[in-house]
Amino acid sequence: MRTGADAPGLAPPGQAALNWSVERWFNLAPGQSAPTLDALRGHVLLLHAFQMLCPGCVLHGLPQMQRVQQVFAGMDLRLLGLHTVFEHHEAMGPASLQAFLHEFRVGFPVGVDRAEPGHAAPRTMRDYALQGTPSLLLIDRQGDLRFHALGRVEDLQLGALIAQLLAQ
Amino acid sequence: MRTGADAPGLAPPGQAALNWSVERWFNLAPGQSAPTLDALRGHVLLLHAFQMLCPGCVLHGLPQMQRVQQVFAGMDLRLLGLHTVFEHHEAMGPASLQAFLHEFRVGFPVGVDRAEPGHAAPRTMRDYALQGTPSLLLIDRQGDLRFHALGRVEDLQLGALIAQLLAQ
Amino acid sequence: MRTGADAPGLAPPGQAALNWSVERWFNLAPGQSAPTLDALRGHVLLLHAFQMLCPGCVLHGLPQMQRVQQVFAGMDLRLLGLHTVFEHHEAMGPASLQAFLHEFRVGFPVGVDRAEPGHAAPRTMRDYALQGTPSLLLIDRQGDLRFHALGRVEDLQLGALIAQLLAQ
Amino acid sequence: MRTGADAPGLAPPGQAALNWSVERWFNLAPGQSAPTLDALRGHVLLLHAFQMLCPGCVLHGLPQMQRVQQVFAGMDLRLLGLHTVFEHHEAMGPASLQAFLHEFRVGFPVGVDRAEPGHAAPRTMRDYALQGTPSLLLIDRQGDLRFHALGRVEDLQLGALIAQLLAQ
Repeated sequence: MRTGADAPGLAPPGQAALNWSVERWFNLAPGQSAPTLDALRGHVLLLHAFQMLCPGCVLHGLPQMQRVQQVFAGMDLRLLGLHTVFEHHEAMGPASLQAFLHEFRVGFPVGVDRAEPGHAAPRTMRDYALQGTPSLLLIDRQGDLRFHALGRVEDLQLGALIAQLLAQ
Repeated sequence: MRTGADAPGLAPPGQAALNWSVERWFNLAPGQSAPTLDALRGHVLLLHAFQMLCPGCVLHGLPQMQRVQQVFAGMDLRLLGLHTVFEHHEAMGPASLQAFLHEFRVGFPVGVDRAEPGHAAPRTMRDYALQGTPSLLLIDRQGDLRFHALGRVEDLQLGALIAQLLAQ
Repeated sequence: MRTGADAPGLAPPGQAALNWSVERWFNLAPGQSAPTLDALRGHVLLLHAFQMLCPGCVLHGLPQMQRVQQVFAGMDLRLLGLHTVFEHHEAMGPASLQAFLHEFRVGFPVGVDRAEPGHAAPRTMRDYALQGTPSLLLIDRQGDLRFHALGRVEDLQLGALIAQLLAQ
Repeated sequence: MRTGADAPGLAPPGQAALNWSVERWFNLAPGQSAPTLDALRGHVLLLHAFQMLCPGCVLHGLPQMQRVQQVFAGMDLRLLGLHTVFEHHEAMGPASLQAFLHEFRVGFPVGVDRAEPGHAAPRTMRDYALQGTPSLLLIDRQGDLRFHALGRVEDLQLGALIAQLLAQ
C-alpha cells in the first residue's frame, strides 16, 4: 500500500528476489568471487538487464547507471549489469560484450545471463519474467525485490527509490 | 556525520529554518492563506530561489522543479518558489513575474522576496545568506533546514534527498 | 520552383522584403547607425522575431541564433533580432529587454518593433503578417524575402538555407 | 581559399576522391548494384566512416546521418556508411553489423571496409588516411573530395556544406 509519505513506486517487502544464473562475469576485481544474491544480502542492489545492441539501453539505460554510480559513490549500493540476450545471439556473444563494455566505459560487474537450448530468452530473464530490455530491478537488504520496470525511469524517481532502500 | 547508509548530501537536523518574508504571492489557490513555515510544519518543503531573468533558473532550475512536481505528485512534498531579485530590479517587478509564470507554466506558489531600502538583495535572501540563483533549499517536517545548494543539482541526487526526508 | 538540386525550403526570388519599423536598437556598436533594409542590401540577413518571455524563443530560438553567430562568424551574414511584443506589454518593455539581453548574452543588434495605439501586435509584425514567436526570416542580397517560418527550424535546414543565400 | 561569401569549411575542388574497397554491402535495394565512385558521379555524396562499437558514432554521428536523411529527402544527396573496423575485429564482424543496423534503424547503404592481412585498419581507411571514427567525407558532383572531418561536426555547419555542394 502506498501512503503520502512513500516515495513513488516502491513495492512492499515480501517478494523474495531470485538468484541469477550467469555464464561468465566481466569487470570483477582481481580475486573477487562471483556476486550472488546470498553474498550481497545486507546491501541494496540495482540490477540493470540490457543488451549491447538495444538502443534504449545504450542511449538511456547504461548512461543512467553510470550517473547512479557517480552520485551514489560511497553509499551502500551495489550495481550489477545482466546481459540478457534474447535476439541476435550471434552478434552479442561474450567477445562482443567485452569490447562493448570497454568502449562504452562500463565499469561495474556485468554477468552474461545463461543461454539454454530451446529458449530464445536466457535463464534469469525467464525466471524474472522480464519483458524486454532495458529492465531495472531493485533488491533491498533483506533480499526482497522492491521495484521492477521495463523501459525508461526518470532520474528523480530512481534516486528516490534507491534512497528509500538505503534508508531502511 | 555521513554513513554508508545515507543518501548523499543531507545535513543533520538541528538547524532551524528561518521564516521567509514575502511581499506578494502568486499561484495560491482561491482562499489559500499565505504559506508560512509554521503552517507547513509536518510537511517536507522544497524551496527554489530564482530570478526570472537568470538563465540557469530558466533553463535548468525551473524545469527541474516542474519534473519534481510531476514525479512526486501525491507525496507529502510542498513546492515553493521564491523570487529573490538582487539585480535588474526594474525588469523583474511583480507584473513581469506574473507574465513569466504564466508563459513558462509555473504552477506552484511563488512568493516575491521582500525588497528593503538600501539593500540590493531582498530580505529572505539575506537572512538565508543565499549566494545567488538558482538556490535549492530542503526543509524537513520538523522545520529544520537539511539541504542548501547554489546552482545545478543532479536529478538523481535531488530525488534521493527528497525521498529521505519523506521517509523520516 | 524546387528542383532536386535545391536545398530544402528556400522560396524563389521576387518578393521584396519590407523595411522594419523600430523604436529603439540595442547592441549597436558605438557610432553604428540603425540597420535598415537599404543599408544592408548586398548582405544576407537573418531576422529572428522573438519575445523575451516566450519559452520557445528562450529555450530554442535564441540559442540557435547564438550557434549561427558562431558557425558563420566571418561570413557575409548579418543577424538581427526583432522584439515583437504582442502580449504582456507591461512586462516586456525596453528596460526589461535590456536586462534580458545582458543576462542571456545576446550580442547581435536587437530592435524593438514599434508599438502602435489600437493594435496588440507591433507594426513590423503586422506588416510581415508574422503569426507568432519565434519567427525566422531570411532575406537575400537583393533584398528579397526567401524564407519565413514560425516555430522551430532544424539546424541542418537552417544551415543549408543560409549557405544557399551566401553562395548566390 | 576562403572568402567572406563562402560557407565555412569547404575545401577547393581539385583533389579527386578515391574509390572505396568494400567487402560487402548492407541496405542495398533489391537489384541495386554496389555503389562506386564512378556510378555516383553527378551526385553529391556524404560518407560516414564509423564503427558500431564507437560511442561517438552511436551517440552522435549516426543520429546526425539520420537527421540528414530526413532533412535532405528528395535532394540530390547520396548517403553512404563505411564500417571501418580498426579495433575489436572479432566483435564487429558482418553478422554483428547486420544486427546493429537493424536495431538502430540505419537505412542507408553501408559497406564493410576491406580488411587486409597485416593491417589493423582496413583498406579504404588507410587510402583516405582517416584518423579514427566517426569521420565525415563530402564529395562533389565532379568526384572531388571537398570536406573531411574527424569527430563531431555541428548540424548548422554540415547543413551549410551540403547545401553548397548541392547548389554547384
